Parts: sequence; structure tokens; C-alpha cells
Amino acid sequence: MLLKDIEELAKASDNIYILGHMNPDGDCIGATLGLAMLLNKKGIKANVLLKDVPSTYNFLPLGKWIADKEPNKVDLLISLDCGDITRFGEYQKYVDQAKTIINIDHHISNTNFGNYNHVVGGASSTCEIIYDMIEDKLLIDADIASALYTGIIYDTGVFKHSCTTENTHNIAGSLIAYGFDFTEIINKLFSYKTLTGLRAQSKAIENLQMFSLDKIVLTYLTRNEIQSLNATKKHTESIVQMLNEIENVECSVFIYETDLHEHKISLRSKGAVDVCKVAQYFGGGGHKKASGFSLEGHLSTVIQKIVSVINEQLVMSS
Amino acid sequence: MLLKDIEELAKASDNIYILGHMNPDGDCIGATLGLAMLLNKKGIKANVLLKDVPSTYNFLPLGKWIADKEPNKVDLLISLDCGDITRFGEYQKYVDQAKTIINIDHHISNTNFGNYNHVVGGASSTCEIIYDMIEDKLLIDADIASALYTGIIYDTGVFKHSCTTENTHNIAGSLIAYGFDFTEIINKLFSYKTLTGLRAQSKAIENLQMFSLDKIVLTYLTRNEIQSLNATKKHTESIVQMLNEIENVECSVFIYETDLHEHKISLRSKGAVDVCKVAQYFGGGGHKKASGFSLEGHLSTVIQKIVSVINEQLVMSS
Repeated sequence: MLLKDIEELAKASDNIYILGHMNPDGDCIGATLGLAMLLNKKGIKANVLLKDVPSTYNFLPLGKWIADKEPNKVDLLISLDCGDITRFGEYQKYVDQAKTIINIDHHISNTNFGNYNHVVGGASSTCEIIYDMIEDKLLIDADIASALYTGIIYDTGVFKHSCTTENTHNIAGSLIAYGFDFTEIINKLFSYKTLTGLRAQSKAIENLQMFSLDKIVLTYLTRNEIQSLNATKKHTESIVQMLNEIENVECSVFIYETDLHEHKISLRSKGAVDVCKVAQYFGGGGHKKASGFSLEGHLSTVIQKIVSVINEQLVMSS
Repeated sequence: MLLKDIEELAKASDNIYILGHMNPDGDCIGATLGLAMLLNKKGIKANVLLKDVPSTYNFLPLGKWIADKEPNKVDLLISLDCGDITRFGEYQKYVDQAKTIINIDHHISNTNFGNYNHVVGGASSTCEIIYDMIEDKLLIDADIASALYTGIIYDTGVFKHSCTTENTHNIAGSLIAYGFDFTEIINKLFSYKTLTGLRAQSKAIENLQMFSLDKIVLTYLTRNEIQSLNATKKHTESIVQMLNEIENVECSVFIYETDLHEHKISLRSKGAVDVCKVAQYFGGGGHKKASGFSLEGHLSTVIQKIVSVINEQLVMSS
């Protein structure tokens, strides 16, 4: 599928909307915005339907392209970066009413729910797919380039994850040639820290415990600590990944006390331990290398239970 | 200059050595090793002269290519990534005895000390230059590719610094296509942490102070703290950069107490404050965005002095 195919379907349609998934991430935001701008260059008005876009992405011209009210009617729905319709949340209603659905995505698990499905499993990101769909690269400008670049660095972890290919780098090279401050985008998405976030991190390192010959690293923040730091869940999001970057650690655990004896647990693995299985044991879910769940009880009991289940997975993996 | 020009000079020479600068960094190590392997593919034996290569780089086949003893005689000396001959340290003696010097570098300040000078100021790294010198890309294998890739990500901060160009990305794309674990290289150079390093970081955040409407962030580790953490200077190297990534901070300071009332100070700036001038005031040096110096005295006085001089620079920049 090429941009001109979307153009053709769009010219035969009124009320065109581009839809991303719930809790949109960098790839979803970059792709929806990038496509809206590209279609606009072709004289096609398509608004973006996105909710809860994090303020981190304010460097993109979000206000100009995100629909300011819910549509009465959707004829052509272009879904980007969404593996199945349940991930649309309340916007799922538009799937039912749309005459035509174009489904563009890079998740191999995509259920092909569209009338037109363009699913490229080998692509690093939906933004990479959108770039490859552009026949006439003269359509691209610095705004479009920065939106697509944002999605690519988000989903590749700045060209680090194994989904990065030769094509990914070639596209990134073409995009930065349009001239935008890619250093600042990488800083905003990956480097910049808040003082509160750093203090939460420091406290978490203080509380850190090692288990199973230092293969498991675990830490927590209690309600009192969180309150006295004036922190929120957002300030603690990078802690579990930071722990997982300790040399020789196989699996890391961060426990966030949400209420008295109520905890939200995040898990990361370098690959040997399947933390999705650990999360599933406790009624949670996720992926092999990143998962999460909730657990009630005294902190010491919670720690004991989690370490014991991870240990089982560790033994199975060795 | 192309690889075949080096080949020609090499064929007319005995005792060929490739030389990097003192305290070699990722670009210097990647480039010297990469070139040694490339010349070997052309049937030319050239050993690398490098001292104090950090163990982080053990993923490269260093042992095979670094000369295991000092040469008696150097005829052809190929200098890589070195701006002037003072940076060779004790290896400067080979500059005097070499019949021919080839000088390949990307620092615009390069003094062109060679008989043949190939200085490309616009290149992100010396590794990028070496890649562009290879006429026949079939010479490249996974080992050569990983060495050149190492230099590129080191000098661009994984494609983040403004020295990254379209060409840089295109080269990186071609290199990863040779098949090596680039994720692991990025992790080893930029992500992996030691537990001691994290604990030093945590303690430094605890000691943190803000000045000048939070534009200056400063912290320190005392001798006692360093000893009780069982830490060395190496474990504290990332602290000043981490502080500089706090939103809205313009300048960051890390003070390391080396001995009673003796301190080593590292400075970073986001760009507005020229920290080289601050360092020069105290007899140190460096660059506009990164510099350092030593200072004696009570910690409280040292802090007062440093903040006062940075404040002057802050006022001048506003």
C-alpha cells in the first residue's frame, strides 16, 4: 500500500479520521501526526483522534492536527500502530460506524481488522512504514520528518533494539536531513530528568536488595516515601529499567505501594527469565522482558512471594 | 585519500604501526582496530599502538591487533583520531623516527602534522572517515563493522549529538547489516551500570544543592562517603552528566574529594554557560560544555567559590 492508495480512498470519502491506540506512545503519536500532515500536503483534511497525549510530545504541532471534539460521523478510519480493535478503548465505536477502515501497523500479532490491511512485521515502527509508503519524498518537510523520526527513535530505543535495521537507519538519515533539532527530541524523550524523579531514584537505590546470587535486584518505594518525595507514579517509571541495567542482573523488580498493603509491581528481564510468566502467576501480564501486576499484603511478604516465583523461572531458564 | 592510497604507501614500507591518542576513547579504539583489520584483508600487517584501553572494549578483538611490545622501529606511522602530536603521550617518539606519517582525523583543530593529512572536519568520527575511505565494501566483515560502529556511536552519543549527519546514519545502517550485536555494544558503552556506581549516584543525589533559581545544580562526594561506598573515580563519572539532564538546569557541578581538602571538580553546561571559562579561572580547562579543574579548601568554601564564578558566566550569558 502506498500513500497514493490512501489518497484515492480519501478522495472518495468525507469525514476522514486517523486513529491511534489508547495511551498513545511515541510511535503512535508520530505516525498519526505525520500522516495527517502528509495527507494535508495532498489537499486532504484528516484529523487525528488521540486521547491522553503526554506533555513530553508538545514539541510536535499536536494542537493543529488532533480533533478538538469527538466526530459525529466517521466514513474513512485510518488506524495506525494498533494491533486489534480492543486497544482503541472508547474510540472502538468508530470502527463499527466507519464505511472503510485502513489498518497500518508493524505488530506481527495484528488481527487484520481493516478493509485494507498494511501490516509490515519487519518494520521497526509504524513511522518507518509510513515513510516507506511515500512515493514522492518532496512531500516531506521538517515537521513531518520530526514526527516520523520521533516514532522511529521511540520504538527502537534510539536505534538500540533489535528491530533496528539498515532501512531504519537509512530512513532516519533521510529524515534528519530535513533539518530539525533531533538532539532535543532524543533529550526530551529519553534523557531529561526531573529533580523529583532523581530523588525517587535515589531513595529506590537506598532500599535496594539483591537475591539469588545477585541475579535478581528488587526495590520499592513505600507510600510514606512517595508522599515525602512529593512524587507520582510517573516519577518512578524509569526505576525498574535502571535496575535492569546493572551488570550480571537477570531480572529486576520495582514495587510501588499505591495504598496501605496494596502494591503495583513492575518487572524487567534481560531475556533469560520470562517475566510475563511471573506476572501471569499473580494475575498480571505483559511481555517476556517487561511485565506488571498488583499484589496485596505486607511488604516483606510481597517481596518473599515475588522472589520465590522469579526464582522458579530462573531455575527453569538455567 | 582512500584505503588504496594507504595500501600503496604500506607496500613500500616495513614496520607499519597504527597509532591512537592517550586515554583512547571509543572512536580511537574502533578506528585503529578497524583499519588494522582492513589492511590485513589487503595482506598488510599493521599493528595498533594503544595504551590503557578500558576493559569495556573487550568485546572487540583487541588482543589480536594491539602490539604486545613497543616497536624497535617505525617506518610508516598511521595516526588516527589525534589532533596534535602532544596527544600521543610517550608514543610521540615514534613521530620523530617515522619516515612517513599519515594523519587521519575529524577534529577541525587538527594541526596537519603528517606527510599525508586526511582531516574531514564534517565527519562525526574518525570511524566514519575510515568507512568512507573503503572503495570495495566487500572487504568489510562483521568484526570490522562492529569496530567502526563502536567509534560512530561513541562520538555521536548514539546518534544524538549534532555531529550526526545523514551520512552517519547511512553508514551505521550499512554496518549493522553485516550482523553483530549492536544492542549489546550500546548497552556495554552507555547503559550497563555497576551497583557501586548506582549507590554513588544515589548518595550524590542526596547531597544535591540547587543555586541561582535552580539554574545551577551542584553535588559532591566526600572522601568518607567514597570510602564507605567502596567506590573509585570511575564509579562517579556519569554523575555530572546525569545532573545536567535535569530540566531547566543550565550548568552542573560534581565535586569529588580526592584527599583532605583536595577536590577534583567536573562541570557540564547545556550550552548557555561557558564552563571552560569557569575551569580556566581555577587553572583548569576543557570545552564550552564540559570542563574540569582541581581546588583546595574546605568543602563549603569550595562550593561558594565555584557557584560565584558560574554565576558571573550565567549573568553574562543572559
